[in-house]
Amino acid sequence: MSKHCRWLVSQGSGLAVFGTNSEANSLSLAEKRRLLDRLCADGIDPAQLMPGTGACSLSDAVELTSHAVSLGCRGVLMLPPFYYKGVSDDGLFAFFSEIVERVAQRSLQIYLYHIPPISQVSINPDLILRLASAYPANIAGIKDSSGDWNNTLKLNSLGIEDFRVFCGSESFLLQNMQNGGAGCISATANVNPASIVELFNRWKSADAAELQDQLNRIRNIFQAFPMIAALKAATAHYSGNPSWAGVRPPLVPLNAEQQANLVTELTAAGFQMPDI
Amino acid sequence: MSKHCRWLVSQGSGLAVFGTNSEANSLSLAEKRRLLDRLCADGIDPAQLMPGTGACSLSDAVELTSHAVSLGCRGVLMLPPFYYKGVSDDGLFAFFSEIVERVAQRSLQIYLYHIPPISQVSINPDLILRLASAYPANIAGIKDSSGDWNNTLKLNSLGIEDFRVFCGSESFLLQNMQNGGAGCISATANVNPASIVELFNRWKSADAAELQDQLNRIRNIFQAFPMIAALKAATAHYSGNPSWAGVRPPLVPLNAEQQANLVTELTAAGFQMPDI
Repeated sequence: MSKHCRWLVSQGSGLAVFGTNSEANSLSLAEKRRLLDRLCADGIDPAQLMPGTGACSLSDAVELTSHAVSLGCRGVLMLPPFYYKGVSDDGLFAFFSEIVERVAQRSLQIYLYHIPPISQVSINPDLILRLASAYPANIAGIKDSSGDWNNTLKLNSLGIEDFRVFCGSESFLLQNMQNGGAGCISATANVNPASIVELFNRWKSADAAELQDQLNRIRNIFQAFPMIAALKAATAHYSGNPSWAGVRPPLVPLNAEQQANLVTELTAAGFQMPDI
Repeated sequence: MSKHCRWLVSQGSGLAVFGTNSEANSLSLAEKRRLLDRLCADGIDPAQLMPGTGACSLSDAVELTSHAVSLGCRGVLMLPPFYYKGVSDDGLFAFFSEIVERVAQRSLQIYLYHIPPISQVSINPDLILRLASAYPANIAGIKDSSGDWNNTLKLNSLGIEDFRVFCGSESFLLQNMQNGGAGCISATANVNPASIVELFNRWKSADAAELQDQLNRIRNIFQAFPMIAALKAATAHYSGNPSWAGVRPPLVPLNAEQQANLVTELTAAGFQMPDI
């Protein structure tokens, strides 16, 4: 994992470890603490790190968030508690609020993680405005994985100072940059970082739409498979390290036929993971 | 909590601690271990205990399940991993299977916890049959909180030897007993245990339908409020211990008006929590 993170940084990407693609919720709190410590011990710059620290349990979220802040992580990506459904904004406000109060560090930078297709619990604009108003120094932005561009657009016009909106897929990267967004935090950045970074750096250039099309072509190949397993299968293939193909239950790895088809399609598209 | 558990046992109820009403997923693994140790240290008979030990993280589920078995708990109630949605039966089978293999105790008795309205991940009959066939000594039954009586009926006719089907609400208790079920595991049993136990013991008697109606009347009062908060508000009121009214975010406690209305309605219905 450290090697992979170093490669991502070398390609110009930051590190939102412990997200959905990281299978963060399939790891224990102890495992996440250990991994984060190890990344830092292995020389990963904490300024590159935005670990996911949200959890169903307030105690877990406070502990991992505190730990990330104490290590100097640039920010944390925070899921809402996702066991109970249909919870009130008051309850979600109390959850995030208690984390800010208990962690009690001015340097805590929270990026809210809105991913209703999976968490089934929304972080809506009213809640964001309320949190940003109560904790302007700590509520730094949001990752919008709703898959709904209109929602991302709305988040970009909330009028909160220095509120950074990341789209959850590079498919929306150009649109997001054109509308004041901060970038994207995407699972696919694990395999295609350089091309995503290129569009991020050159979104005002004449060929930006073409760069976006190229990103979409690669993403569409992965999306046709169970995506998390496919990203890991590709990492295993291109790195020559088969242990990358493993996933934890309840996810299942690609079978041999799926793996072969994935590599065939990626090769046909001219896809590479140089220097991995 | 120990006092409350002793009271429940005195009323004839068993103890499915760390379920949905227990806000188990709002607790950390360390908090659950500590609570379980404390209950046993306080003299609760482990033969009465069926703690919830499922988790999104396989590591957490294995650790808490092992701990429960080592304490001598009669069984464990096991949620499926509930972060990812639309996961395959193969993935869920692998999850439960790894728990059985890693805990590796003949005395492990797993009661699957089917609660799709909240977990959004189903444990369907095909998966149950597959698990029971692979681990006949360990797959002991299911709690069906689908709210769908037809599903409970189907579970009672799977043809698995000694497979115990509990309905997740006492509203289905009489029907469940009439169809070969094992009983109910219900949040409301925390406040109304004696009446539920009475129907359980006398479901063949002439007045069983009337007993069922009485249970439904009490449950309907609680269900008209946010139920988990309402059960705790009632426990606070009748025990005279206001700390029971607290819940963890993202849940919110009843407000003063709701509390007053709840007590008024319960009083009008002749509800009591004797000797609590």
